[in-house]
Amino acid sequence: MEKILFDYIEKYIALSEEEKQAIIDLSVFKTFEQDAILLREGQVSNEGFFVVKGCIRCYYMIDGEEKTTAFYTEGEIFAPLCSITGQPSEYFVACVEETILAVSTPEIEQISFEKFPRFESLCRMISEEKVARNQATFDEFKTSSPEQRYLTLLETRYDLVQRVPQYQLASFLGITPQSLSRMRGRLQKRSEDGPEANKLYAAL
Amino acid sequence: MEKILFDYIEKYIALSEEEKQAIIDLSVFKTFEQDAILLREGQVSNEGFFVVKGCIRCYYMIDGEEKTTAFYTEGEIFAPLCSITGQPSEYFVACVEETILAVSTPEIEQISFEKFPRFESLCRMISEEKVARNQATFDEFKTSSPEQRYLTLLETRYDLVQRVPQYQLASFLGITPQSLSRMRGRLQKRSEDGPEANKLYAAL
Repeated sequence: MEKILFDYIEKYIALSEEEKQAIIDLSVFKTFEQDAILLREGQVSNEGFFVVKGCIRCYYMIDGEEKTTAFYTEGEIFAPLCSITGQPSEYFVACVEETILAVSTPEIEQISFEKFPRFESLCRMISEEKVARNQATFDEFKTSSPEQRYLTLLETRYDLVQRVPQYQLASFLGITPQSLSRMRGRLQKRSEDGPEANKLYAAL
Repeated sequence: MEKILFDYIEKYIALSEEEKQAIIDLSVFKTFEQDAILLREGQVSNEGFFVVKGCIRCYYMIDGEEKTTAFYTEGEIFAPLCSITGQPSEYFVACVEETILAVSTPEIEQISFEKFPRFESLCRMISEEKVARNQATFDEFKTSSPEQRYLTLLETRYDLVQRVPQYQLASFLGITPQSLSRMRGRLQKRSEDGPEANKLYAAL
């Protein structure tokens, strides 16, 4: 269970045995059932999550409809905005499937930073990289057509296409479920029609 | 010049006189002309920026057209992805107007973290907050229509609408300049037509 967390951290810094033990002692691993809700709109939580196994998603309720905006899977970290601002959350966080999370709080962070100041450097490096990478993802979303976004998703996060319901995937791509369905149909047809069919289309 | 930087930092931690002096000693303030290019596609830079005065933007060259994806104005911080990954930049960074920046490098950061470990905590807090706030901005972009995005921009970053050319604003909103122009026309007409005209429409 800890291995995936150690592997993630060791992309940034090599851990000593003592530090590994401290992480094991501090880490609160929790298992959640499919569809379990981790955070509701209007709630405040101070918890941050590292996904050990499974998938969580963020969604908003807009005019009675769920709008999914983000997914986090194995080896990804996520701290809801309310855990930083203390303001009520504008979105829900729920488990797409049975999920194991390492759950952190400011208290756990504080204890670990005091004992191992390197852990604070680690969190700084992880966050700085996330800011820059997330901006690049946002840029790509802005500069791509829905079809390009879908093809990029097939190429870079194919696991999501397989494990996530279509209606959640549609709003994640910024389109309606009907548009996604039509687009899949078009791409399927293109794949059957011509010799230019490639493994992406074949994967549809 | 330092005041805007101190004000920004003191939203997170109160600074001692010694720390303020260290920031003055370390800060490299540079002035750039309008349209000066800070980073080109394909280049690698290790510089990060804090905007003291002015406005910088990120843009991609796609099929010979500029696609602007982000603006940073007074009191905002920005580190290009290449400064973290060491990989060539996929985008350009340029000054929209004459701009004064505090320019940082990993070396400057390291010196300051060693002398004032609290500065590393500060950078961690700033980055963690930015990750969560930027995600909320991305969520809003995904779940809004282009018209809603434009009205939100008028409400929350009206300065941008005033200081930035329309074609840059259009791709920032994820639409074509023609769509933005038509949308402004529609909103203008709606404002003239009905008693429901409000200050937002009046501002168009």
